[in-house]
Amino acid sequence: MTQTTLSTSTVKALKCKECGHEYDLGAKHVCEDVCFGPLEVVYDYDAIRQRVSRATIEAGPNSIWRYRHFLPVTGEDVIDVGTGMTPLVEAKRLARRLGLKKLFIKNDAVNMPTLSFKDRVVSVALTRARELGFSTVSCASTGNLANSTAAIAAHAGLDCCVFIPADLEAGKVLGTLIYNPTLMAVKGNYDQVNRLCSEVANTHGWGFVNINLRPYYSEGSKTLGYEVAEQLGWQLPDHIVAPLASGSLFTKIYKGFREFVDVGLVDDKAVRFSGAQAEGCSPIAKAFHEGRDFIAPEKPNTIAKSIAIGNPADGIYAVEIARKTGGNIEAVNDTEIIEGIKLLAETEGIFTETAGGTTVAVLKKLVEAGKINPDETTVVYITGNGLKTQEAVQGYIAEPFTIEPKLESFEHALERSRTLDRLEWQQVLI
Amino acid sequence: MTQTTLSTSTVKALKCKECGHEYDLGAKHVCEDVCFGPLEVVYDYDAIRQRVSRATIEAGPNSIWRYRHFLPVTGEDVIDVGTGMTPLVEAKRLARRLGLKKLFIKNDAVNMPTLSFKDRVVSVALTRARELGFSTVSCASTGNLANSTAAIAAHAGLDCCVFIPADLEAGKVLGTLIYNPTLMAVKGNYDQVNRLCSEVANTHGWGFVNINLRPYYSEGSKTLGYEVAEQLGWQLPDHIVAPLASGSLFTKIYKGFREFVDVGLVDDKAVRFSGAQAEGCSPIAKAFHEGRDFIAPEKPNTIAKSIAIGNPADGIYAVEIARKTGGNIEAVNDTEIIEGIKLLAETEGIFTETAGGTTVAVLKKLVEAGKINPDETTVVYITGNGLKTQEAVQGYIAEPFTIEPKLESFEHALERSRTLDRLEWQQVLI
Repeated sequence: MTQTTLSTSTVKALKCKECGHEYDLGAKHVCEDVCFGPLEVVYDYDAIRQRVSRATIEAGPNSIWRYRHFLPVTGEDVIDVGTGMTPLVEAKRLARRLGLKKLFIKNDAVNMPTLSFKDRVVSVALTRARELGFSTVSCASTGNLANSTAAIAAHAGLDCCVFIPADLEAGKVLGTLIYNPTLMAVKGNYDQVNRLCSEVANTHGWGFVNINLRPYYSEGSKTLGYEVAEQLGWQLPDHIVAPLASGSLFTKIYKGFREFVDVGLVDDKAVRFSGAQAEGCSPIAKAFHEGRDFIAPEKPNTIAKSIAIGNPADGIYAVEIARKTGGNIEAVNDTEIIEGIKLLAETEGIFTETAGGTTVAVLKKLVEAGKINPDETTVVYITGNGLKTQEAVQGYIAEPFTIEPKLESFEHALERSRTLDRLEWQQVLI
Repeated sequence: MTQTTLSTSTVKALKCKECGHEYDLGAKHVCEDVCFGPLEVVYDYDAIRQRVSRATIEAGPNSIWRYRHFLPVTGEDVIDVGTGMTPLVEAKRLARRLGLKKLFIKNDAVNMPTLSFKDRVVSVALTRARELGFSTVSCASTGNLANSTAAIAAHAGLDCCVFIPADLEAGKVLGTLIYNPTLMAVKGNYDQVNRLCSEVANTHGWGFVNINLRPYYSEGSKTLGYEVAEQLGWQLPDHIVAPLASGSLFTKIYKGFREFVDVGLVDDKAVRFSGAQAEGCSPIAKAFHEGRDFIAPEKPNTIAKSIAIGNPADGIYAVEIARKTGGNIEAVNDTEIIEGIKLLAETEGIFTETAGGTTVAVLKKLVEAGKINPDETTVVYITGNGLKTQEAVQGYIAEPFTIEPKLESFEHALERSRTLDRLEWQQVLI
């Protein structure tokens, strides 16, 4: 493989989101010299415009790397395990149930290799980690990121040490350990894990995907904007609904749409951005509703552990985007989250984790409050798979009918199931 | 959507594999009029040749439906939830570990929507079921098929009743119930479930995907042949290794390769077909090694439940293909299966279920026995996801280090982990 040098890359520098001070493309994430604001990658959009067209993208790989000129890597040797280009499913049955006309699910519950949108950000972060010479990669995670970092590090042959809160769902723990990283289960919540990792990042020469590599890592989420635009036939939707954890995903979908407009790949259009949180951890929703321009950190207490970040780094930027686009940020309780998981499964055959249940429940709440126009093209982002959070729905779904391997036993059970259906139906009518 | 009539379809008839008697394209699977042999779909290959080229396929949808002229549906209104076109990953680290040079993993552990190759066969079967007017669909399943039938039926708005052995893994049961089908958990093994379903198929007007719709259903597996050929740059591999349950998958990959040669999409080439079974249920491997032309049914006893079929319908056809292509059929024990799961995860970042562990373990065994040439382009089919069979590896993988959210506690654990690594390494050297 050929290594393109920095000079031919479309990536220019890191730049502080607050004061605009620029830094070289190293492993850093805050504006150390001036204001301690977060750093963001800036690109040479003229160079991108010259190199990229709808046709060049369509001829690219069937993964996030078809958008590589928009991603913060400088070489050609990217880690491509098929991540991205997940289906944009038209959700006709869910739309009918809710009274909408044009509803789509962007289904990252089947993203590759570890079934969450985190595979996007990790593919980018570990590619950049390798370019910067790191041999050990690490992360602070609520679960999905741990799965993804451990898996993609294994594929790439990088050493890996990941940090999670000790009370995570079994599927997320096993789904990390199987790749044989060093796994640190920290007795504390995500915000405590994150603080510990910041200390470790300062004392060990490791590449933390969501700390010192965060500016590169977070850019991977832009692909969730690019893909939706391409899959809608090179146009933007009217309204998107996405989960909010740190708030980064939300801001990067927005950035992705804006970049596509700026380089002329899609026509400009107003897109409303609505966000979803769990009531048990909703600092961003509260800031939105109380008209504040700061986030008041809180202690998470919800089954939606993957989005339970009490002190969200990009929360205030998410609030700004929801406000300026005319969107909303809502929170739902744990019962509504479980109902959201079931609703999506029953109508569309998509089994999502608690974060996705939160997003579907918020979609329903927004529709019921008249905050989504039925004629709008609405895209709901489903970011993770239900097989990882099985505990959340256990006890809330139907039981199987246990039968003998005999026709008579089956007929008896079938009769019972039909009686149950009738009873349920009668209850609906009453 | 437009409905193409039968006359413009490339599908001609059902035909008995044994006596050649032809039937119309209804819901039937055995040669009722003559010999009770299995029925298979036959196509008009001249019509296919006229309509299909590499370019038309490449311009098609990013799913199995890019090959729709090779699939047994007559209309245009197919059920497409993004199934298929899973990555063909070059497994460089696993290859190095085993001493191979050109090894690829066809990764259906991330197939859409339910993370197994069954989504392929079910997408085809339910499309055909709808064409034939069925409103209720059903199946006999070892787990993955139940997940897939329930999910895709939910998406398509079809009623669904699925049958499984009562002792399946928790993830497979929950991963079915979440879509809210009627689920019958039968106290017996798969072969007993299958017999019960044959009776139910005769007494209820349901479309059983793997009984009365089996000729259509099984054709979906051909796409695992087509995709590998296309993803290798329109050429066939030298050797494939796939799991054997009923044997159908194996025969259909073979048929897929042959069809691509016949219509001129790829050059002809000898491809060796090797199959993988678990020792606790290896009737096909035994028939192969004992030189028999019949399968002696057995009672399954293995952790690889998804491939534990004691009386495999297409077993003897699988034996024939392995023999005539110069392949092998091997079996491995449960310990080797778990090691196979771990080996694939640690080297490639792919977490597969027990069936995939079986296939990787058999690959290893074949390499060690000198039955795979290191220079051959070898493709290993991974057919399902490890999150569904978490029980299988619990107790066989490392534990996390539980720590306090303090740097000192982390440093202590890191030191312990390095000591453990050194000890393990010393043991390897001894």
